[in-house]
Amino acid sequence: MLKSRAAVAWEAGKPLEIEDVTVAAPKEGEVLVRIVATGVCHTDAYTLSGADPEGIFPAILGHEGGGVVEDVGPGVTSVAVGDHVIPLYTPECGKCKFCLSGKTNLCQAIRATQGKGLMPDGTTRFSVNGKGVFHYMGTSTFSEYTVLPEIALAKINKAAPLEKVCLLGCGVTTGMGAVKNTAKVEPGSTVAIFGLGGIGLSAIIGSVMAKAERIIGIDINPDKFEIARQLGATDVVNPKDHDRPIQEVLVEMTDGGVDYSFECIGNVDVMRSALECCHKGWGESVIIGVAGAGEEIRTRPFQLVTGRVWRGSAFGGVKGRSELPEYVERYLNGAFELDTFITHTMGLNDINRAFDLMHEGKSIRSVILYDR
Amino acid sequence: MLKSRAAVAWEAGKPLEIEDVTVAAPKEGEVLVRIVATGVCHTDAYTLSGADPEGIFPAILGHEGGGVVEDVGPGVTSVAVGDHVIPLYTPECGKCKFCLSGKTNLCQAIRATQGKGLMPDGTTRFSVNGKGVFHYMGTSTFSEYTVLPEIALAKINKAAPLEKVCLLGCGVTTGMGAVKNTAKVEPGSTVAIFGLGGIGLSAIIGSVMAKAERIIGIDINPDKFEIARQLGATDVVNPKDHDRPIQEVLVEMTDGGVDYSFECIGNVDVMRSALECCHKGWGESVIIGVAGAGEEIRTRPFQLVTGRVWRGSAFGGVKGRSELPEYVERYLNGAFELDTFITHTMGLNDINRAFDLMHEGKSIRSVILYDR
Repeated sequence: MLKSRAAVAWEAGKPLEIEDVTVAAPKEGEVLVRIVATGVCHTDAYTLSGADPEGIFPAILGHEGGGVVEDVGPGVTSVAVGDHVIPLYTPECGKCKFCLSGKTNLCQAIRATQGKGLMPDGTTRFSVNGKGVFHYMGTSTFSEYTVLPEIALAKINKAAPLEKVCLLGCGVTTGMGAVKNTAKVEPGSTVAIFGLGGIGLSAIIGSVMAKAERIIGIDINPDKFEIARQLGATDVVNPKDHDRPIQEVLVEMTDGGVDYSFECIGNVDVMRSALECCHKGWGESVIIGVAGAGEEIRTRPFQLVTGRVWRGSAFGGVKGRSELPEYVERYLNGAFELDTFITHTMGLNDINRAFDLMHEGKSIRSVILYDR
Repeated sequence: MLKSRAAVAWEAGKPLEIEDVTVAAPKEGEVLVRIVATGVCHTDAYTLSGADPEGIFPAILGHEGGGVVEDVGPGVTSVAVGDHVIPLYTPECGKCKFCLSGKTNLCQAIRATQGKGLMPDGTTRFSVNGKGVFHYMGTSTFSEYTVLPEIALAKINKAAPLEKVCLLGCGVTTGMGAVKNTAKVEPGSTVAIFGLGGIGLSAIIGSVMAKAERIIGIDINPDKFEIARQLGATDVVNPKDHDRPIQEVLVEMTDGGVDYSFECIGNVDVMRSALECCHKGWGESVIIGVAGAGEEIRTRPFQLVTGRVWRGSAFGGVKGRSELPEYVERYLNGAFELDTFITHTMGLNDINRAFDLMHEGKSIRSVILYDR
């Protein structure tokens, strides 16, 4: 048991409060991690807003972290004290029907308890003045010390700067993985990316790495275009500049439509545009964004019967323990950069400012550094 | 120029009328075919009803035929007089962007004129008393003599009985191909097939050939279950026997959902059920049925983000000239049978009865034999 500085979400719609949280020792199969840095992601804001039907309070949010193993519970074998790790909100047990399928990264080993804000044994390791506080996405990286199941930790190269590669815990991997693992974009492809936030920009990087020939970035905020071009977008389009559906504009621009499209916003109307801008016969659209509760996508089935494919992607289809360490290696080898994404850094005490910057569209990612 | 017996659809919603139609000689790249037999398909009925927004009248319907080449126009090289052929409503030019993509069977070489009921030069070969009559789907197999572009003919083994393999011109290939080419069902898979008409039954055969382990047939008409079981369905389910959504029933029956599902009806609500009965992480649903004009499919995007895939299939993804002859060979080799599908045979004069039988749900396929 130890005390940890943490940002607690006491209730939906209220700012986080910095507290001294009591963190219980890791139980069997669990690991105590000292978080060095964590990104603040839209999904944290979505849950904090109260719109997430699975959201429960009080909770410690945060799911895009990097840290160091401080202690391990009984039976833990895959990580040891001192290892550098990235927490995984999509764990990888290697044993469940999903892990064994070879077709998905959506390990379900601890889905039920994780969704309830609890460790696999059905209890929480966090408390404030004796009152339990829930975990979030099984990660709770807005606490300097957090407890995770062993199967929810990717052990990475110690040479990697945790304050950068923490972004591989969610956004960057999600965008890059959706291109590489879910869509499997081939060299020479034409790609459309809807929404140029952290995920969309990562999808641009992924498309460049996949040697896509034409990479079209779409956003209603033209301030995003410069960075999109820097990262490799060959074209940028603002739907507000056109008085007809954006899918028509894109189909015309690309002589029939794109080979692959990615929805990186969470807007069901944009999801439709992203599907319908795909080329007849083979275009595939990947939904990455998370829509509001109860919202539905729709299209005419003719769109699919004439050869378009509608997919989705979670955490980029990446298996955290077996594949994420390779992403870190690729970063270390210079295959892509992360600095562009980190528009702000701050200490934990300023975490509510990170949410404000995001809501104002002024940040790609704010990274919280616990040593500040 | 010759006279041909044909069933003419003079206007939407009216019975066909048997006429002596004048058929002009094939022009460059065109072929005159004597149709020996043709199936009557739901798509013919859909267009005849007036619900098809692309439907134009007067026209000679029919698209599931088998025949013999009687004459060829200038420049025709791939077929010769006496060859046995199956007309293709999805042609294969081998040269367009679509044919060359290697990703689709949806050749677009003559799409524009075909959709307008005309040959590629923008004119029709059919007339009655000097008045032009439109082609339909580029095939018009409800005429004993019809003209088609060379690229819309699959040359097949003469040993094949045309009064049987004509069904490979649409329904049977559509169902089998959707399993083999579009979904690529693997051995051991669990499959759900919604709608046990000609397409659905063909999808069952395709699933058996793909060595699916469990094949679940779904229909609200229990009269279809016996034949479905005969062809290889391991389970049959009637949604009317359950007071909850059929997707929930199927997910429970299959410990999480099916690996592949096929919608063979054209009902957008069933399309949703077919998607949502798929297994999280990898289940793929293929839309084969043609929905009413303007109708839309819908679901929560979460269904896709958690790994399900939504596809469609036209003519089973089969390239007519290069792949259909193999289907005929497989039939000749006993890989599947067609007799089960042919519930009725009749002469052209009785063609309106074939439509009645279909509307009454009493036939799988009626085959029109021109020698009767």
